[in-house]
Amino acid sequence: MPKIKAVIEYDGTDFFGFQKQPSKPTVQGEIERALGEIFQVDNFRIAGAGRTDAGVHATGQVISFDAPDRFPADRIRPAANGRLPKSIRLRRTEIVPETFHARYSAKSRTYIYVVLNREEPTALLARYVWQISRPLDAGEMQAAAELLVGKNDFASFGMPDRPGGTTVRRILKLRIRPMKDAIIFGVRADAFLRGMARAIVGTLVEVGLGKRSRDDVEEILSARDRRASGVSAPPRGLFLTRVEY
Amino acid sequence: MPKIKAVIEYDGTDFFGFQKQPSKPTVQGEIERALGEIFQVDNFRIAGAGRTDAGVHATGQVISFDAPDRFPADRIRPAANGRLPKSIRLRRTEIVPETFHARYSAKSRTYIYVVLNREEPTALLARYVWQISRPLDAGEMQAAAELLVGKNDFASFGMPDRPGGTTVRRILKLRIRPMKDAIIFGVRADAFLRGMARAIVGTLVEVGLGKRSRDDVEEILSARDRRASGVSAPPRGLFLTRVEY
Repeated sequence: MPKIKAVIEYDGTDFFGFQKQPSKPTVQGEIERALGEIFQVDNFRIAGAGRTDAGVHATGQVISFDAPDRFPADRIRPAANGRLPKSIRLRRTEIVPETFHARYSAKSRTYIYVVLNREEPTALLARYVWQISRPLDAGEMQAAAELLVGKNDFASFGMPDRPGGTTVRRILKLRIRPMKDAIIFGVRADAFLRGMARAIVGTLVEVGLGKRSRDDVEEILSARDRRASGVSAPPRGLFLTRVEY
Repeated sequence: MPKIKAVIEYDGTDFFGFQKQPSKPTVQGEIERALGEIFQVDNFRIAGAGRTDAGVHATGQVISFDAPDRFPADRIRPAANGRLPKSIRLRRTEIVPETFHARYSAKSRTYIYVVLNREEPTALLARYVWQISRPLDAGEMQAAAELLVGKNDFASFGMPDRPGGTTVRRILKLRIRPMKDAIIFGVRADAFLRGMARAIVGTLVEVGLGKRSRDDVEEILSARDRRASGVSAPPRGLFLTRVEY
């Protein structure tokens, strides 16, 4: 049973998130169905590195699973893609050591968040950006972002996977890059609480609009209370781009 | 009756092109319906700068029309966008001199074409790129492209709007830019024959793959025969980005 690691890209618009849910279309559900069909295995299960929310996209989600010996490993990608909706694609697969686990072996995850910062409406990007008409101060947002970098209790920015779980996470990098009429937030952390990436972006956007100051961000962090942070940025601007091992 | 110029963005995937057709969804048809509703005018008509084919997108298509005096010009954009599908948006509107015509006043049009030049499949870009797995030689394509720049008879690359119409057009600019795993073709011409942008990209891609030489491109141009050129690039990678007046 070779262990397979696969890098996955998906448009999250039409899914109820990554994680499998009974009788709702999810990314995990679609991939498990497709792989189960090609392997002819009932209730086939995969592990995923990040449990992205409904509407969140990925260009570099990682999954792992055990493939049957009889199935040629280099046929998995084309066979699975042939049975997946067009909005989900296996980008590449490789055989990895038996001990590899997409989630537990991951050292960090990188997300980007795209804000379209212009007044003119968009048709082509509507499903992939959070549009904000008023100008955002990227410098102020970057200065506030620095306060979040490092090992902190991010209880104000998200929920642990299990009740009572730790809310301490380490942000390794948090960058705000203005690009023409967009602002790209890039955040890398050892792991993310539920809703953490979107709460951070939402709070930084309030800083960028002048609604909150850097001091407010420090206060929010020390409050360790989910209600303290700013609005949650909508899921459609968020992309899981990379999982580091 | 103020004359209005509007810049339009659309995702062409689900439309049978820009130009109105009976009982098929088209961009022009949707816009004429929406404006007719807000102006309460039957059979409302607009003029469009470029007749993009089915599946072709636009970020800078231009339309013009006469608005009723009684309708506040600054309410046209929000009112129309409220009645358009999300895949079509009026980006901006302005009052222009009565003599302005989106099509006849246009001095040139700019298109870009996006080739995703990588082996890994894509989910997010599937509707917006032509994916080519084998590496393309951008330098060879640019060298071949230079042969097409200027005033030429492009009969090998497209059809005139009306049978017997001239097939002479002037290409003002034709640039090939490699960007990470994409190659962006930018072409600006006084006007385009039907299918011209896609035939040029298709032919240049054959050069980039080594299937055709620069000499072949010169021969195709002098043949003045639509059958001489290479394959037509698929519509989904093409975007009308700008109309110059």
